[in-house]
Amino acid sequence: MKTGEDRLVQKITRALAFKGRSGLALGAGDDAALLKSRAGRQLVLTCDWFLEGSHFLRDKHPPDSIGWKCLARAVSDVAAMGGEPRYFLLSLALPETHTGRWLDGFLGGLSRAERRFRCQLAGGDTTRNDKILINVTVIGDVPSGRSVLRSGAKPGDLIFVSGRLGEAELGLRSLRSGRAVSHRNGSRWLKKHLYPEPRLALGRWLAGKRLATAMMDLSDGLSRDLTRLCAASGVGARIAIDRIPEVVVPKEKGRAHFDVTELALSGGDDYELLFTVRPRQAGQVPSAFIGLPLSCIGEVTHEPGVMLVAPGGLEEKLAARGWDPF
Amino acid sequence: MKTGEDRLVQKITRALAFKGRSGLALGAGDDAALLKSRAGRQLVLTCDWFLEGSHFLRDKHPPDSIGWKCLARAVSDVAAMGGEPRYFLLSLALPETHTGRWLDGFLGGLSRAERRFRCQLAGGDTTRNDKILINVTVIGDVPSGRSVLRSGAKPGDLIFVSGRLGEAELGLRSLRSGRAVSHRNGSRWLKKHLYPEPRLALGRWLAGKRLATAMMDLSDGLSRDLTRLCAASGVGARIAIDRIPEVVVPKEKGRAHFDVTELALSGGDDYELLFTVRPRQAGQVPSAFIGLPLSCIGEVTHEPGVMLVAPGGLEEKLAARGWDPF
Repeated sequence: MKTGEDRLVQKITRALAFKGRSGLALGAGDDAALLKSRAGRQLVLTCDWFLEGSHFLRDKHPPDSIGWKCLARAVSDVAAMGGEPRYFLLSLALPETHTGRWLDGFLGGLSRAERRFRCQLAGGDTTRNDKILINVTVIGDVPSGRSVLRSGAKPGDLIFVSGRLGEAELGLRSLRSGRAVSHRNGSRWLKKHLYPEPRLALGRWLAGKRLATAMMDLSDGLSRDLTRLCAASGVGARIAIDRIPEVVVPKEKGRAHFDVTELALSGGDDYELLFTVRPRQAGQVPSAFIGLPLSCIGEVTHEPGVMLVAPGGLEEKLAARGWDPF
Repeated sequence: MKTGEDRLVQKITRALAFKGRSGLALGAGDDAALLKSRAGRQLVLTCDWFLEGSHFLRDKHPPDSIGWKCLARAVSDVAAMGGEPRYFLLSLALPETHTGRWLDGFLGGLSRAERRFRCQLAGGDTTRNDKILINVTVIGDVPSGRSVLRSGAKPGDLIFVSGRLGEAELGLRSLRSGRAVSHRNGSRWLKKHLYPEPRLALGRWLAGKRLATAMMDLSDGLSRDLTRLCAASGVGARIAIDRIPEVVVPKEKGRAHFDVTELALSGGDDYELLFTVRPRQAGQVPSAFIGLPLSCIGEVTHEPGVMLVAPGGLEEKLAARGWDPF
C-alpha cells in the first residue's frame, strides 16, 4: 500500500539516519518535526535554494557534490552568526529518472555532510519535477547574546577575511571547461567549488571570544557581500588590493590568464567568513586559525561606499559585481 | 549600490512587516533569523513545496491565492501536531516578469495569511527561475508532551474527520474548467481550494484536552492519508461510506454528475483534520467545533489495511488513491 512518494521518503530517511544529536523528539515521517530547544540559547533559522541550472548543472556536477553542497551552503549561514547547526529539513523535487542511482549519489554526499557538520535530518518534503530542485532549511542555536550580526561594524573596525578568495570560482571554470570532472582527484579549486567547508569552528570562536563586531559568509563575492555588510551597519569600507588573499596560481598554469584580483572581488561560492574587529582587539586575531589563513584587508569608514586602494595608493570606488540573480 | 535581489528582498519584507510576535530577535536581512524559544514548549518544524505546474497553475490561480495557500499548507502541518505556528521562512524563485504586479498580488494574499495565522516572516531566500517555485518553512511550538503524532492510534479508537471532504477538489475542477475564475464571488468549493483554513483552533483544542490519540491533516485525500496514519500506528481501520461527510451538491448542480464518495476518498487539498479518539472519550467530541462539523467515520482495527463498509454492510478493501507525485 506504500505510495511512490512514501518509498522515496523511506529511502531518504534510511540513507540519512544519523543519530548524532539528542533533542530530536520526532523526525521525518509525521506532519512536522518535534525538537527540544536548549536553555540559554537562541534559535538560528535559515534556508537556501539550490536549483539545477542556477546553482548547479545536472551534467557537470557529481550528485555526491550536490548533496554535500546543498547542506554546506545553508550551514555556512549558521557559521556566519557564530552558531551551531543542529537539524535540517530537505525539500527535494526530482524527475522520476533521478530516484535511483542519481539519488544514491546525492544521499551519499549529503550523508557525509550531515556527519561532518553534525546537522541531522529532521524532516522535509518530496515531489516530482522535470528539473532537480533543492531547498534546505537549517535550524541551529547560539548562546543568547553571542550571535554576530551584519549590522555591528563601527568606523575604525578592521576588516578580515578567512581563506583565499576566488578559488571556488576557478573550480567552477575548470568544471565548465570539461576538464577534471572527476572530483576525487580534482584540484584544490575544484574541491573548494564542489565540497565547500563552512567555517563553523572559526565562526563560533570569533563569537565566543566576542572578537567579531559584524560577520557574514562570502557567498556572492567580496565586492557584493562587503557592500551588504556595510549597508547593514550604516558604514563604508576601505580595502587594499594587495592585502586581499588571492588565489595562488602556479607558474605552469599561466598566471597571466587569470585576473586574480577580479576573481577575489567577484568570485562567488567561497563560503569564507568576512568579519570586522575593533582595532584594540585586532591583535587577538591570529594569522591563521587551525590552518586557515586570516587576513586583514582594510578598515571600516564613516563615509558610505566601498573604496579599493591600489598598491600605489590610488583609490577607486568599488562597484558590487558578484552574483546577482536579478 | 543595491542589487536586484536586495531590492526584491526589501519589497518582500516591507509587504510582510507584521509585528504580531514577540521573540523574533532578528528577521530577514541577515545571514539567518534569530528566535527565542519559549520555556516548557517543544519546537515544531515543517516545510512544504508549492510549485507551478504541480501545485498550482500560473494562468488559473490568482497570485493572491498562491500567497495565502503556500503558508496555509505548511501551517496545516503544525495544526495537525496540536501546535501553534510562530514564524515562517519564504523561499521564492520567480521569473523577472513576475516581480511586479504578480508579486504584489502574491504578497497581498501571503500578508493576510500571516496575520490570520499569526505566523510572522522571519527570513528566506529569493532567486530567479523560469517557473515560479515556492517553499515555505514554518516553525511553531507546542506545550511539551502535548503534541499529537500519527503513530498513537490503538485498535478500538474511533476515527473522526472535520469538515466536508472533497470540496477543494470540486473547487479545483471548476477552476480548471475555466468557469468562476473570479475568486471573490466564487463558490464555497472554489474558496476552499483557493483559500484553505488550517484547523489550528481544533488541533490545539484536541491536543490540549488530550482527546486525540493520533492526528494528521488531510492533504492528499482520505484514502491515502488514513492509510498513512494506520501504517504509522501499526493498525488498520474500518470506515463506513455513509458516515463520511461528503460534499453537499445542490440539486440544480446535477448531483448525478459527481461521485461524491469518490471525491471524499481521493480529493486532495482539503486541509481538514483526521484524528482518533479512545472510545470512552468519544462522547467529549462535539458534533461541531466553532461551526465546523466533526464526524465519526469508523474505528481503528487490529488487522492492517483500510476496509470500506457500504451501507448494505458489504466490506471492501480501500486502495489508497489520492495524490501521489511518483
